[in-house]
Amino acid sequence: MSKTAPAADAEALDAFYADLEANHLAPLWPISAELMPSAPTPQTAPYLWKWSMLRRLAERAGELVTIERGGDRRVLSLANPSLDGAPYASSTLWGAIQYLGPRESAPGHRHTPSAIRFVMEGSGVWTTVNGDACGMFPGDLVLTPSWHWHDHNNETDEPMIWFDGLDLPTVKALDAIFFEPYEPDELQEVRGHGISERLWGGRASRPRGFDLPVGPSSPLLVYRWGDTDAALDGLLAERGGPHVTLEYTNPVTGGAVMPTLGCEMHRIVAGGRSRPYRKVGSSVYVVFGGAGSSVIDGQRYEWSRGDMFVVPSWATLEHEVSETSDLFCITDRPMLEALHLFREEWIDFATDAPSRLEISVVTSA
Amino acid sequence: MSKTAPAADAEALDAFYADLEANHLAPLWPISAELMPSAPTPQTAPYLWKWSMLRRLAERAGELVTIERGGDRRVLSLANPSLDGAPYASSTLWGAIQYLGPRESAPGHRHTPSAIRFVMEGSGVWTTVNGDACGMFPGDLVLTPSWHWHDHNNETDEPMIWFDGLDLPTVKALDAIFFEPYEPDELQEVRGHGISERLWGGRASRPRGFDLPVGPSSPLLVYRWGDTDAALDGLLAERGGPHVTLEYTNPVTGGAVMPTLGCEMHRIVAGGRSRPYRKVGSSVYVVFGGAGSSVIDGQRYEWSRGDMFVVPSWATLEHEVSETSDLFCITDRPMLEALHLFREEWIDFATDAPSRLEISVVTSA
Amino acid sequence: MSKTAPAADAEALDAFYADLEANHLAPLWPISAELMPSAPTPQTAPYLWKWSMLRRLAERAGELVTIERGGDRRVLSLANPSLDGAPYASSTLWGAIQYLGPRESAPGHRHTPSAIRFVMEGSGVWTTVNGDACGMFPGDLVLTPSWHWHDHNNETDEPMIWFDGLDLPTVKALDAIFFEPYEPDELQEVRGHGISERLWGGRASRPRGFDLPVGPSSPLLVYRWGDTDAALDGLLAERGGPHVTLEYTNPVTGGAVMPTLGCEMHRIVAGGRSRPYRKVGSSVYVVFGGAGSSVIDGQRYEWSRGDMFVVPSWATLEHEVSETSDLFCITDRPMLEALHLFREEWIDFATDAPSRLEISVVTSA
Amino acid sequence: MSKTAPAADAEALDAFYADLEANHLAPLWPISAELMPSAPTPQTAPYLWKWSMLRRLAERAGELVTIERGGDRRVLSLANPSLDGAPYASSTLWGAIQYLGPRESAPGHRHTPSAIRFVMEGSGVWTTVNGDACGMFPGDLVLTPSWHWHDHNNETDEPMIWFDGLDLPTVKALDAIFFEPYEPDELQEVRGHGISERLWGGRASRPRGFDLPVGPSSPLLVYRWGDTDAALDGLLAERGGPHVTLEYTNPVTGGAVMPTLGCEMHRIVAGGRSRPYRKVGSSVYVVFGGAGSSVIDGQRYEWSRGDMFVVPSWATLEHEVSETSDLFCITDRPMLEALHLFREEWIDFATDAPSRLEISVVTSA
Repeated sequence: MSKTAPAADAEALDAFYADLEANHLAPLWPISAELMPSAPTPQTAPYLWKWSMLRRLAERAGELVTIERGGDRRVLSLANPSLDGAPYASSTLWGAIQYLGPRESAPGHRHTPSAIRFVMEGSGVWTTVNGDACGMFPGDLVLTPSWHWHDHNNETDEPMIWFDGLDLPTVKALDAIFFEPYEPDELQEVRGHGISERLWGGRASRPRGFDLPVGPSSPLLVYRWGDTDAALDGLLAERGGPHVTLEYTNPVTGGAVMPTLGCEMHRIVAGGRSRPYRKVGSSVYVVFGGAGSSVIDGQRYEWSRGDMFVVPSWATLEHEVSETSDLFCITDRPMLEALHLFREEWIDFATDAPSRLEISVVTSA
Repeated sequence: MSKTAPAADAEALDAFYADLEANHLAPLWPISAELMPSAPTPQTAPYLWKWSMLRRLAERAGELVTIERGGDRRVLSLANPSLDGAPYASSTLWGAIQYLGPRESAPGHRHTPSAIRFVMEGSGVWTTVNGDACGMFPGDLVLTPSWHWHDHNNETDEPMIWFDGLDLPTVKALDAIFFEPYEPDELQEVRGHGISERLWGGRASRPRGFDLPVGPSSPLLVYRWGDTDAALDGLLAERGGPHVTLEYTNPVTGGAVMPTLGCEMHRIVAGGRSRPYRKVGSSVYVVFGGAGSSVIDGQRYEWSRGDMFVVPSWATLEHEVSETSDLFCITDRPMLEALHLFREEWIDFATDAPSRLEISVVTSA
Repeated sequence: MSKTAPAADAEALDAFYADLEANHLAPLWPISAELMPSAPTPQTAPYLWKWSMLRRLAERAGELVTIERGGDRRVLSLANPSLDGAPYASSTLWGAIQYLGPRESAPGHRHTPSAIRFVMEGSGVWTTVNGDACGMFPGDLVLTPSWHWHDHNNETDEPMIWFDGLDLPTVKALDAIFFEPYEPDELQEVRGHGISERLWGGRASRPRGFDLPVGPSSPLLVYRWGDTDAALDGLLAERGGPHVTLEYTNPVTGGAVMPTLGCEMHRIVAGGRSRPYRKVGSSVYVVFGGAGSSVIDGQRYEWSRGDMFVVPSWATLEHEVSETSDLFCITDRPMLEALHLFREEWIDFATDAPSRLEISVVTSA
Repeated sequence: MSKTAPAADAEALDAFYADLEANHLAPLWPISAELMPSAPTPQTAPYLWKWSMLRRLAERAGELVTIERGGDRRVLSLANPSLDGAPYASSTLWGAIQYLGPRESAPGHRHTPSAIRFVMEGSGVWTTVNGDACGMFPGDLVLTPSWHWHDHNNETDEPMIWFDGLDLPTVKALDAIFFEPYEPDELQEVRGHGISERLWGGRASRPRGFDLPVGPSSPLLVYRWGDTDAALDGLLAERGGPHVTLEYTNPVTGGAVMPTLGCEMHRIVAGGRSRPYRKVGSSVYVVFGGAGSSVIDGQRYEWSRGDMFVVPSWATLEHEVSETSDLFCITDRPMLEALHLFREEWIDFATDAPSRLEISVVTSA
């Protein structure tokens, strides 16, 4: 650390610091250790939200708050208590639940933040993306990529609840948010139903011979649970468990579904425990099925279907499950890889004690 | 055109040309028009081989020629008559049929040319690629990428016939062929059956979290007919016909299955006619189903199931079918794209007469 | 906008909001307009620091604060008053001046944030990067890329002052900072002087035939003012002025010098005015020579040699110069491009009045 | 090897082979070893052309053959005697010398094959590429990329001789040649002189802020000998010799100057011997300065300034020089890399005997 010269008396130094402040300069030496820690020291802390609570409050929102023309979305965002009141799940990721009541619709708009929807409950809502109406069913992943028009339309008699994941905190931090409502605030004209699936949904194939616009995000807008389930079964059959991971991909590039957001599904077999792991970048997990717990930097979080939890950057993560479990998650990994800031590692502990990573059990309200 | 100077007499010029020849130099001016035509003038001419003949001779080869250890493949290559006796379908592509009798096997080897297999007849042969035994059924595409060990093993009581497609003429022209037999000339040890399909066969997804080597070619080694058929149906449903094309892709990159070879499947609905088209680069077509004809640079070639035909570079191509037809093809397009030499165009004719592209009907022996 | 259902009484709603807060959920509807503005609303405001002040306080720091072993850097960071006390020039960029006195040195360390140094005053200091000692002279750009060891060593009898530019705020926001001191806190062993320039400093050429490690950042570590000056002259000669821009590039990729930071030099000829422009992403400008002013979102900032100023995301920017001026700047553009969030536009105003963009003149202290 | 079944009598087999031939099929088994050798067996053999002969015949061509409107180029191509009369230096590369007399010009045209010019003798000819007139001086490399208009114009009183290198044999083999004369056969209108050098000639920098079209080839069209010479000196200073290699690069990508052709300059210091090496792909060398010899697959070729020689694919190559020598070469390496067919290796011999690679000395006529 730099320190004051022997000859510098305290008074001179005080005057100097005052001079700096008055001129909007900051000396590095008093803050360098905080600015540049030896490893990430995220403000984001782990946190878990229970499905029973999420579901109850989403339903209550449905009773109390309408979606009107000129309006927006009935969304409850995961506001990580470590983030000083910001409505973010982590410093870089937005997570939320969205509730769309029977016969309700949410009008069109578009924005530069990219979003994904992962369906928790309900069947048959249409999310229309640039005119392509995508049917939504439990376990499906639906993309609404950056600057694509999108609206949601529930023509059924049941409500739907889905998880919203966005890169919004990062796009905000980069001062790159643009937003536009679909005028006049209503649903888009539907060009067809399931267009992207018919064009881009082939297994390891692509259409040829007609002009299809392709941008940086996946042109395939829906990933069906049946396909995800089958792919996980294949991975398990090949690797033998206990933990396999699939990343949803953009069929045009083979990479992440969107330049800023990655989507994964983890399956851990009953009684299994994942290998302790950490990576740069945060994740928001959504328990799609099963029951178990995750130890995050020494704190155990117990979960069952519908629960959602946040894993901060560089936090050690280990899952342990009683039932075979499926964990959906979003991650900022594609950003970090694009910027060459990604690191990951598996951690080998000296002993194999059941609680090797656990310090205490944390239970969210 | 350059021409001799007025002062140059014929004798001086003759002496000069002899001097050039003796010194292994060639004057450009007499040959520049031939060297640099205004558009491609391929030596390769269109040609069509009938399945009845191919099948008969493949079977006959099975009777007369054995596959022995230390040996090779029972392969009959399409030797385009325009190519001066070279055993090539086109100047850049190898096409052939391979016949593997009941209980026969073809031992392992590897080579830098890349190969694909497209199954015409028979069920249940294993092609083992770097230890991964891939079951082969009609309509399946199997890859044996550059420098991958591969052997074929028929444990069934029926013969199998498949189409072989390779980039061999180009790799030869580039003086880049390496070959290695699997020692001692036998089948590889099988690590598993269908490994690549379990790891890489997910729809628009990829495995994560364990170290999987990935090279320039697709790690998915088998493309099942059922998937191809379904994807074509999707394209037809979306586009309405009469002609849709699917390219098989490397799931890691979204691009061609191998750096030098592209594989496509075309479906043309009964009564349909494709839009006249030409591109730089040649193709070898294999009729997987249906019946119809193709007009290639004004010559009509009639075909039905199993027939194989060659389309040269820059030849105008139009298909016309009586039954809904599926045409598999290999193409050198990935090479041409990598070298920025690819061009394609659709041709609009002034009149819509049925025979607009046809000059005469050609029937192969 | 969403609003409360007609039936919802205020009491029920208050209870609901309290319930949300207690469960760490945030309703989107009250904040959606702020979260998703129609265009970027950066917290970062424009600001300008005068060289006379910067130089005076840097020198004063040299008198009062020593650099000691175990220590760090004598750095005064531009602390934009709009950023609530954060020591950042903009939300995404760090800018600072560093002062290294005669015969002083700053010991080695490395960190994942990437840094550039642009020399303002002094000659002959060595910045050693992974063992390659790079001599520093006015107008030179020196790179210390992510996770490269670097130290600074002044063997001359004069102080040196340079501008430091880093991606630190963004790497911090992404929770991706790692830092390591060079042990024992001292200077690196020097492998050679100017290695990178001899290997990678050729014009439009690269070394071949020996194994040279290449990462995501430029292996060329120094960009000499003479080259920059000559390239700007070439651009001016070709384009005729009044404003030309050069981006420093990574010779291995032709792209930005580092994945997260772009460096540019702008030259505007005497009496010239640049075309009004805005882009997503912020910039920190350093006046290397000349005098003039910049109108940023309607506020005029007057500058001369050594002054530094910040341009926020999407702010309209126009330069107007009395003397031919050279403006160095760093920008987060490579990040935004990598994430497909970059936009830029030139703005055409209806009239050509001299003050078309100006609202008032701002003078920094 | 496959062989005939025991039961097959010779007569049946003869009939079968005749049947195959009549149906334009070729059995693989008799030719598989030739088709798939264990390592490349290029038809191209090494060959060396002496400058004294090249110069004499180029001059003689200047006396005897005019360049007329409607015409072409006064080019003498290196016709490798191993290639059955083809006017090619190797199977994949074209090499030639072009002679342009005082006050002569060669009219505009364009073609898909890419070409480079390397100046041997004369000063001040303009090669105009898409309207940009590029001055040519000894040691300069000038690009005329695929499908760019180009003409040559000698306004001086001295002739010029340069080396032409093209990918023509490969583009021909791929049936991808297009050609178009500039109408009416004359010189292009000149937009400027040295445009590309002013825009793209900066060291490790690129222009920003105005719209510049960029294709797959380098937008920088001229590489000056002074820069090449200085870069080689830098490499030698850093590596200590005896052999350094520089590749000319496309500043937009950092890669080869054109997708199909690589250009290199080798400098070997007096008394030095290069490390024995081989690679897939052929090269054409042009001795720009110095004197020495190269041992190619055991045959020694002695050379001095202006000589040109061919190194076939996978041939072992070693240079040994008496004077410090500069060897320019073109190579098909970018193609082979794009197709993932490139391999290279350095060969370590057990002994260090002077003639370790030499079998006999070959002297060209």
